[in-house]
Amino acid sequence: MFFHDGGKLQYRVTVDRPNPAFARMLQQAIGGVEGEIRVAMQYLFQAWGSRGPKKYRDMLLETGTEELAHIEMLATAVALNLEGAPAMLQEEGARDPVVAAVMSGMNPRQFLSAGLAALPADAEGVPFDASHVYASGNVAADMYSNVTAEATGRALAVRLYNLTDDAGMKDMLQFLIARDTMHQQQWLAVLEELGGPTAVLPIPNSHPEREQVTEFAYAFVSTRVGDGRDLTGRFTEGRSLDGKGEFHLEPAAALGGEPQLAPAPAGGGAQVEQMAAEGGLVNRIKGALK
Amino acid sequence: MFFHDGGKLQYRVTVDRPNPAFARMLQQAIGGVEGEIRVAMQYLFQAWGSRGPKKYRDMLLETGTEELAHIEMLATAVALNLEGAPAMLQEEGARDPVVAAVMSGMNPRQFLSAGLAALPADAEGVPFDASHVYASGNVAADMYSNVTAEATGRALAVRLYNLTDDAGMKDMLQFLIARDTMHQQQWLAVLEELGGPTAVLPIPNSHPEREQVTEFAYAFVSTRVGDGRDLTGRFTEGRSLDGKGEFHLEPAAALGGEPQLAPAPAGGGAQVEQMAAEGGLVNRIKGALK
Amino acid sequence: MFFHDGGKLQYRVTVDRPNPAFARMLQQAIGGVEGEIRVAMQYLFQAWGSRGPKKYRDMLLETGTEELAHIEMLATAVALNLEGAPAMLQEEGARDPVVAAVMSGMNPRQFLSAGLAALPADAEGVPFDASHVYASGNVAADMYSNVTAEATGRALAVRLYNLTDDAGMKDMLQFLIARDTMHQQQWLAVLEELGGPTAVLPIPNSHPEREQVTEFAYAFVSTRVGDGRDLTGRFTEGRSLDGKGEFHLEPAAALGGEPQLAPAPAGGGAQVEQMAAEGGLVNRIKGALK
Amino acid sequence: MFFHDGGKLQYRVTVDRPNPAFARMLQQAIGGVEGEIRVAMQYLFQAWGSRGPKKYRDMLLETGTEELAHIEMLATAVALNLEGAPAMLQEEGARDPVVAAVMSGMNPRQFLSAGLAALPADAEGVPFDASHVYASGNVAADMYSNVTAEATGRALAVRLYNLTDDAGMKDMLQFLIARDTMHQQQWLAVLEELGGPTAVLPIPNSHPEREQVTEFAYAFVSTRVGDGRDLTGRFTEGRSLDGKGEFHLEPAAALGGEPQLAPAPAGGGAQVEQMAAEGGLVNRIKGALK
Amino acid sequence: MFFHDGGKLQYRVTVDRPNPAFARMLQQAIGGVEGEIRVAMQYLFQAWGSRGPKKYRDMLLETGTEELAHIEMLATAVALNLEGAPAMLQEEGARDPVVAAVMSGMNPRQFLSAGLAALPADAEGVPFDASHVYASGNVAADMYSNVTAEATGRALAVRLYNLTDDAGMKDMLQFLIARDTMHQQQWLAVLEELGGPTAVLPIPNSHPEREQVTEFAYAFVSTRVGDGRDLTGRFTEGRSLDGKGEFHLEPAAALGGEPQLAPAPAGGGAQVEQMAAEGGLVNRIKGALK
Amino acid sequence: MFFHDGGKLQYRVTVDRPNPAFARMLQQAIGGVEGEIRVAMQYLFQAWGSRGPKKYRDMLLETGTEELAHIEMLATAVALNLEGAPAMLQEEGARDPVVAAVMSGMNPRQFLSAGLAALPADAEGVPFDASHVYASGNVAADMYSNVTAEATGRALAVRLYNLTDDAGMKDMLQFLIARDTMHQQQWLAVLEELGGPTAVLPIPNSHPEREQVTEFAYAFVSTRVGDGRDLTGRFTEGRSLDGKGEFHLEPAAALGGEPQLAPAPAGGGAQVEQMAAEGGLVNRIKGALK
Repeated sequence: MFFHDGGKLQYRVTVDRPNPAFARMLQQAIGGVEGEIRVAMQYLFQAWGSRGPKKYRDMLLETGTEELAHIEMLATAVALNLEGAPAMLQEEGARDPVVAAVMSGMNPRQFLSAGLAALPADAEGVPFDASHVYASGNVAADMYSNVTAEATGRALAVRLYNLTDDAGMKDMLQFLIARDTMHQQQWLAVLEELGGPTAVLPIPNSHPEREQVTEFAYAFVSTRVGDGRDLTGRFTEGRSLDGKGEFHLEPAAALGGEPQLAPAPAGGGAQVEQMAAEGGLVNRIKGALK
Repeated sequence: MFFHDGGKLQYRVTVDRPNPAFARMLQQAIGGVEGEIRVAMQYLFQAWGSRGPKKYRDMLLETGTEELAHIEMLATAVALNLEGAPAMLQEEGARDPVVAAVMSGMNPRQFLSAGLAALPADAEGVPFDASHVYASGNVAADMYSNVTAEATGRALAVRLYNLTDDAGMKDMLQFLIARDTMHQQQWLAVLEELGGPTAVLPIPNSHPEREQVTEFAYAFVSTRVGDGRDLTGRFTEGRSLDGKGEFHLEPAAALGGEPQLAPAPAGGGAQVEQMAAEGGLVNRIKGALK
Repeated sequence: MFFHDGGKLQYRVTVDRPNPAFARMLQQAIGGVEGEIRVAMQYLFQAWGSRGPKKYRDMLLETGTEELAHIEMLATAVALNLEGAPAMLQEEGARDPVVAAVMSGMNPRQFLSAGLAALPADAEGVPFDASHVYASGNVAADMYSNVTAEATGRALAVRLYNLTDDAGMKDMLQFLIARDTMHQQQWLAVLEELGGPTAVLPIPNSHPEREQVTEFAYAFVSTRVGDGRDLTGRFTEGRSLDGKGEFHLEPAAALGGEPQLAPAPAGGGAQVEQMAAEGGLVNRIKGALK
Repeated sequence: MFFHDGGKLQYRVTVDRPNPAFARMLQQAIGGVEGEIRVAMQYLFQAWGSRGPKKYRDMLLETGTEELAHIEMLATAVALNLEGAPAMLQEEGARDPVVAAVMSGMNPRQFLSAGLAALPADAEGVPFDASHVYASGNVAADMYSNVTAEATGRALAVRLYNLTDDAGMKDMLQFLIARDTMHQQQWLAVLEELGGPTAVLPIPNSHPEREQVTEFAYAFVSTRVGDGRDLTGRFTEGRSLDGKGEFHLEPAAALGGEPQLAPAPAGGGAQVEQMAAEGGLVNRIKGALK
Repeated sequence: MFFHDGGKLQYRVTVDRPNPAFARMLQQAIGGVEGEIRVAMQYLFQAWGSRGPKKYRDMLLETGTEELAHIEMLATAVALNLEGAPAMLQEEGARDPVVAAVMSGMNPRQFLSAGLAALPADAEGVPFDASHVYASGNVAADMYSNVTAEATGRALAVRLYNLTDDAGMKDMLQFLIARDTMHQQQWLAVLEELGGPTAVLPIPNSHPEREQVTEFAYAFVSTRVGDGRDLTGRFTEGRSLDGKGEFHLEPAAALGGEPQLAPAPAGGGAQVEQMAAEGGLVNRIKGALK
Repeated sequence: MFFHDGGKLQYRVTVDRPNPAFARMLQQAIGGVEGEIRVAMQYLFQAWGSRGPKKYRDMLLETGTEELAHIEMLATAVALNLEGAPAMLQEEGARDPVVAAVMSGMNPRQFLSAGLAALPADAEGVPFDASHVYASGNVAADMYSNVTAEATGRALAVRLYNLTDDAGMKDMLQFLIARDTMHQQQWLAVLEELGGPTAVLPIPNSHPEREQVTEFAYAFVSTRVGDGRDLTGRFTEGRSLDGKGEFHLEPAAALGGEPQLAPAPAGGGAQVEQMAAEGGLVNRIKGALK
């Protein structure tokens, strides 16, 4: 069950000088893969499908609900940045390079489809699609997914912050940047509560360790041709981070042979030449088809 | 520049008893969000756009190229599982419940569109879309994204492993499970090389720490109504994982007031009632429009 | 700003006999075009972009927030219907026709991607995409859009109701059917408050009536060939519903002539034959390209 | 069966001064959710699946076919607006700010993919997708859906009309605005023929009235926290529009309790911690997995 | 301008024994990439954007309009195959394996979203998307694209034909197979009219032949590692088909060196480590950010 | 199994003057329907599903692997064109029209989502989707599909070539144009090896010639109304290109009558009026529903 607070915002949203081009950029934080619709739905779907410790279900509901308030803030910021954008052109206005620049920098659908308001779409006008809502049913995979979402989300917020010099927008973004700082932290804190790398990894930790091809479980496979296979790092030597193996480097090799698929079956819509290897047989089939 | 090895597979792929329903399930590992097309393209796009230490560009190329070989293995597994699937029905066959079960359990497009072969789509037939290729331009965000991809990928491989009792398929999946183990490790190893949580976080670490609303940077905001705001955990107390703040719990509050948008502009395609607050003015506008 | 109630549901959700095939069907009510994600986001985006009478902004927030609770109920219903679905197959189980039927009737991604939980997708596994969130910036258009959403939503709920004989599911659906009854009513009530058809129509009512080709504004155009143009009804005679015209029937005719596009431009990647009408000129261009 | 008239247009389409930026805007009326491909396909699919009175099948065919002619008109308008757009840049041209403005304001794919012609896509270049074709199998729901399509379509046409000062384009749009006026009317006329609100509502009217949770069928549920639940209007009091209930306001409450999902199943790819509530059991499972 | 013939079909469509599973398969021919919506829109968009000889614009209109009639036939076939499909389950029916099989083999949205009718979607329920409408502005490229569409379309029709033993459906498909035969022919006939391979190729033929890296214009590049580069065929020796070059085999080599991207810019949301190569500088930047 | 060459490029990629607007245009060649991701995946999926002569499987692997190197070249070209693009705006910079022009001409997500790098998306920011990967299981259909891909790909490369005057970019595009020349040739060479038109056509050539409605297999059907049915050409007279029929022109006619769908079923969510033709029955049903 959810409630709202009459449209009051979680944090103040003001725009000193409306800028339709910035209204377009802000769409990425609403409907982009790094945006707020995604995290709101992601945390809520993780909560609703949560099996296991109730604590994490509760935590996901807490923050999923907060993210709804962030969509609201950003949608408001878009609408305020569009105030004064051209909705009607007079003969003279159409020739004005300033109007032209506004028109070419803005998202046309914010006017054409929404009458000067935000869309649930990204900065290129691509509608949000919920395939980006990751809720895997594995709490550790989900926590890493959430850290990723907040890391790319904070990178986006920082980029938007650097693209604007509007004091109101900078203030709002400083709030969102701070929330992303915390949200990165809190999902990592769950991983620590679950025991950290040695307890959590490999994900899922419920698969028997022996039921994998163990000689490849800690091998860095190099697929480079020629003599350049000299890449080394923490990932090619030393104890693995889960404490269960030893890193080593392994040149790639084709261990699997060449697959042999059967000829195309009768009635399968292939060419006759795909149905038989031998020329005489091909001709006999062709004859029968006349 | 890339090379192939004449179609030879990285690891053996055999199918003891072809199973069209399993061919459908395998599609998730090819074209699903947890699948191999996604990681191949993700690591390669991260490499191609890599700015900064060349070592990580090289590493991403190594593993991105390996993932291409995994798509190849899985596409082969799909084709082998489809051998013998019905491509032509005789009068009697159409009434056979076994044939009917095969038909309803299989992905119709593997036959209708591909002539009994794999598609670049997921288990529901939704084509892979590259919006899932995360290459953020921030190496730490990308590493977390890659861990996520390998964690959900390994969970998927484990689920597929438990759904089949075909010895050949179980063998192939044990190989892929092992590779996912390593790939989880190697991206985490990069984060360790970069200095671990205190050096890496918050992401991006290039944003000045003071340019955020600092009182919200380590606050767990509870959005729960009523008296139940008692959720505690590693994320509500103690030093933050980046060592830069102290966790605390903060009940949600609407700090931002209610936004006021301007009335709809003339020429903006709204209803007249949206263009003015006062009834007399609405009527005057309506009169003028006749 | 939004709040939650600790995961407590708006109405009880119980499942007497879990049915994975019904779990698939329920997805349509979550992530389908007739589903709850769509209306939740639609009403909220309409609210956030609302210009004009504040009353409707408030009303949209009220109901948009309620719809979030409906997603929650349905996601819970999916998870409960999946309990006991096969997550691991033994040698013997794989041959069991009951298991086979469950596997072929269920949505594979509810297990493979979500570990037995709901997805933000429709009954065919197509992820929800926010292009279905209609928020036009015109309050009357939005109200008709909302009536449509609730009409198709109630038709869907009725179909689901008739497909199940599970008492718990039937009870939950009776609640959702009732809410859709009310939501149809409330959006129509707004149209009545705005003055009903004569005041509201044509939408947008802010466009000058004379700035349209008036002889076609109330003409039913028949595009039928031959002698069958005898379709009559309320839409071919009598006063129009907005009281501003008289319906009449008009056989379709091509008033516009045949368009003439210019030849393809140089450098435009067309064939030479598209760049000139005259054979000699084509040959001269071809000569120059060698 | 369908016929064409040799490419002759339903109404004249002329462009006085080609404007590539307007060519981009027009795309919304072709391939946008408010556009002509959508209504053409929507009315035709409604006709082809029509069950019940043949009259409405006929009517839908009539208007669906007309909409094809509107796509044709708009595609022509796009091509004409692109004439003279830059297809080849000379050294000097590339520095010309006018050329630069044309390039940045236009849709790059109209040139790159189509050689200066229209695309079946919206103003942001997102291809039309047929998920927007609503044909619900319920004639009343479809009529409301059609009114919505024509209302948002007319709002779009009005916005385009106000964005251009080209006399030819304004003339064409006046025709399309008139047709949208009529099309709004004609679908509403069907609802009147079907008996108006009391006969038509709630949709579907074939569901027994008693098989819903009746106390919620005419209740406006307020989800607002705090003291602000004072929203009143036509939707909170008086007889409902279908004449079957009395509107009243009901504060939201969580009637449903907190759902309990089972622990994650064995083999389901979850973390061990999700499979058991008790620490000792978690450890025993972990031991068994080694 | 377009006309219809009152819903009369181009060819008879009858169904002897309705089969909901076949109704699902038929969707591929309606809304799949090989289907009729695609070719209808493809030929019409090619016509509407056609620059150059008017004859081909006319021809495209002729056949594009015919394809509309094919969508109509197939949508009718779907509706007829769904008659008698279960729309309401009684207590006993839900346990009936025949009903269960029908339900699991059918497309759930044909009932849930359309009330037993066709959808503009493919056999997996993925809505048609117009990105598949190829209209390149180059008449020769378009003709090859059209041949492809009719070749995959005929392969699909043949596969459907072999999957059914319903006499009515086989009759309808024999008609569609014949039309695809002709349509393959007619697009190839245009290529012959345009002068055949030597005149048409390479596409576009309006690009100066010398403005390409000519030593690679007729070289078959082998990307195979090791000793297996012995693939020969018509494409490795002899005169090229356009008569403008000589085929030869060329082992792949990396001629281009390794690219060097600049470090990540300030303000670009990268990690500090990406902004400088030298450790001391990294530390200085980090110090400045505190 | 695949290998890489340490990021060395197949051909040199240099940019003399970075141009963010051109970086946007280049995206079409990466992630557009005419682009390199599509052909790489198309040829590889065709190879992996290849049934029949092994030679074509090998050939497809050869060229599919080469296309990966083309994505790499283009992604590098995008990154180089973005160097120096504004990542941080100062107070003064925001007012600079040159900066404004760069911002409005560039793809915002290349900065916001990727930190100045290429995306797997087209020039409009629409992510690549793998529905464009055609691998039909019919070798001849696939060859025509591949010719189409290379024809539209070369048209795109030529358009890009004409839009830039950067010497480095022109050099790179001359290489890609040459490769597209060859790739058009090599797929056509396969069709010649398979016997040319008379052996290959109609596709699939494995369907019995008599199992189609033969009188329509070589008829050009004219759907034009009125007297204008005078279109003639190679496709209306003479021997067909497959040598199996005679072209002739056939005016379109509705041979199929009007379909009759059953009334809407009980429980199907339709309106009562759709469930019965007779008014009295409608009323009785309505009575029973109360």
